Amino acid sequence: MIVVDDIAEMEIVSVDAILEKYIPEHELKEVQRILYGGKLEKLNIPSAAEELAEEKKFELAGYVIDAAPENIRPPRIVRIGAIQNQIVLPTTAPLVEQRDAIYKRIESMIEAAGMCGVNILCLQEAWPVPFFFCTREKDPWCQLAESAEDGPSVKFLQNFAIRYNMVIICSILERDEIHGDTLANTAVVISNSGKVLGKSRKNHIPRSGDFNESTYYLEGDTGHRVFQTQFGKIAINICYGRHHPQNWMMYGINGAEIVFNPSATVSGLSEPLWSIEARNAAIANSYFTCAINRVGTEHYANEFSSGDGKPAHKDFGHFYGSSYVTGPDGRRTPGLSRTKDGLLITEVDLNLCRQTKDTWCFRMTQRLPLYAESLAAAIKHDYEPPVIKE
Amino acid sequence: MIVVDDIAEMEIVSVDAILEKYIPEHELKEVQRILYGGKLEKLNIPSAAEELAEEKKFELAGYVIDAAPENIRPPRIVRIGAIQNQIVLPTTAPLVEQRDAIYKRIESMIEAAGMCGVNILCLQEAWPVPFFFCTREKDPWCQLAESAEDGPSVKFLQNFAIRYNMVIICSILERDEIHGDTLANTAVVISNSGKVLGKSRKNHIPRSGDFNESTYYLEGDTGHRVFQTQFGKIAINICYGRHHPQNWMMYGINGAEIVFNPSATVSGLSEPLWSIEARNAAIANSYFTCAINRVGTEHYANEFSSGDGKPAHKDFGHFYGSSYVTGPDGRRTPGLSRTKDGLLITEVDLNLCRQTKDTWCFRMTQRLPLYAESLAAAIKHDYEPPVIKE
Repeated sequence: MIVVDDIAEMEIVSVDAILEKYIPEHELKEVQRILYGGKLEKLNIPSAAEELAEEKKFELAGYVIDAAPENIRPPRIVRIGAIQNQIVLPTTAPLVEQRDAIYKRIESMIEAAGMCGVNILCLQEAWPVPFFFCTREKDPWCQLAESAEDGPSVKFLQNFAIRYNMVIICSILERDEIHGDTLANTAVVISNSGKVLGKSRKNHIPRSGDFNESTYYLEGDTGHRVFQTQFGKIAINICYGRHHPQNWMMYGINGAEIVFNPSATVSGLSEPLWSIEARNAAIANSYFTCAINRVGTEHYANEFSSGDGKPAHKDFGHFYGSSYVTGPDGRRTPGLSRTKDGLLITEVDLNLCRQTKDTWCFRMTQRLPLYAESLAAAIKHDYEPPVIKE
Repeated sequence: MIVVDDIAEMEIVSVDAILEKYIPEHELKEVQRILYGGKLEKLNIPSAAEELAEEKKFELAGYVIDAAPENIRPPRIVRIGAIQNQIVLPTTAPLVEQRDAIYKRIESMIEAAGMCGVNILCLQEAWPVPFFFCTREKDPWCQLAESAEDGPSVKFLQNFAIRYNMVIICSILERDEIHGDTLANTAVVISNSGKVLGKSRKNHIPRSGDFNESTYYLEGDTGHRVFQTQFGKIAINICYGRHHPQNWMMYGINGAEIVFNPSATVSGLSEPLWSIEARNAAIANSYFTCAINRVGTEHYANEFSSGDGKPAHKDFGHFYGSSYVTGPDGRRTPGLSRTKDGLLITEVDLNLCRQTKDTWCFRMTQRLPLYAESLAAAIKHDYEPPVIKE
């Protein structure tokens, strides 16, 4: 039963679809080259997966970001999966029912990912729950916080990690019992063995628009960890952290080859930025990025205000999906739809990271000692910026 | 006499023009919102300037990036000008003639800028000369290097700075006689009083594709200076420095409100990155950016190789222009053409910088002490990145 299904008729499905619909072939090719670095080859999707997607009404798209063959290293082919989804039940339903309905929904999407041979799968930010941070209400929402070691969402996904030999990134509202029952915005990395490999917390917390998330949790304290999996080195930059290039940079310095950005963001606030930030990060750091945003409009029982002079209301806008993957050379996939649940599969060759470093030399020319020194000076209270006046 | 005028017939003029040509109004509006943050109001251009542009065959475009009125501060309206241009004579002509022909060409474009009330004007990278760095030939090109204090190009522009009460940014190949006759890639800031306010050198030097610029000069040693002008605080991030978010960040930390990025880059190498990097910098740092690229294809007398396995050749591709301005809120102007000389004028309200900082809080949430500490650790030779393994 999909109750929350009020996606406005007026919402366009995607920019990519509009470009393909109207622009003639020759010019479209140039537009796609300039905007996206070229049109990617489509991935061959098994028909069983396509049938499942059709039956369960979610989008299923697949692309290939290839790399040149090398003489010494074999290719390192990895399939990255990204899932974007709406909530299923109204936010007034009993909490466990809401969560179970999402579990059920996600299960069929993970099954499709398994059929497609996905090696690393990432879900959107706080995927098992409505994005209630807009409300600033602690009750009942804090009850949904769960353990990053053995909470219900982690346990739910561990089964699939084993069944499909798949690393799964599970972004949750974490309850940290060891440290005073505090909350955190946390991504848990579940290895393809089913074990919890570790967790990474959101480093930058918004205080902007409806996203008053510091009502619930503070800046993460796990730094810029990288997880060595069987399918490459990965890291997670959660949501608002994508606005901070220095955050992306540290994951790159620590060796990440794919950085995931599970997000939840609405069209009025960030949509013109969405296609820029994760893609810029891939380019600047010579790694792959995978940006995932949830879909749909969520309604809440009690009205809340947004600090923007407008009347109180019960929803905070349209989550516009548009999840996409970018390669280190700047080529990117089209986005998933702005309006519909979806699974994006991108086959990549991780060799492209080092190839791009060798070609463009952005890492070699980074001058990190200069910036270590500059930042150390700049953070002092008596810092005097070098401003030249007449 | 425009000799170098071989812009391939096949080059499209701009992505913006194609979108406007084919996409119906309602959907175009959404595409422009998602891609550019909305369609900007056009600036009212004096007819005398339009006539001059038509006569001299350069594009003249103007836009407004507005800000909300405030209660306490008056608006701070500034007009930013950006000029992109081809070389005029063949690269085999006597050096002084080549330069003089460019001076003459630029003069009419600056005149148009003056008519339009431009307050700060920036020219492209190494604007008085062909972009000969591809050739790796020292002779005769190094002869064109000039003083950043009183070289011919600086002197040429000082006249216009006074005449039009205009700050002008002059990007040159600098000859530093005080420091061993060495060369540098340098932007000179000429105040609207006509005085040289100071200079800022290119911080990151490419060793990529044809851009073997470290054959001529090394990494800049002027740090991240900001220039306090009558029309706001400005800084210059020259060309390849736009690939480095930490470089953009330091100009922001030092207080820049507008950062110019005079560039010279060709379509095969960087075009899909062009619309991403300067725009991402504006967003991440809550300032305006102005990215300028030269136009046309330059041919050289002697063939050179590009280290890419292809035969030696005498040109290194198409400079694709596409100069544009982005606001701190991510809204951007369309690009100037990919094929033609042009002057882009953008009227901005500098108040938008602080307004955006207050709204999005990217500066407040930047956590610089974390990164000062992380970088200080990361640059050590015995650094052990935090990599978690099973």
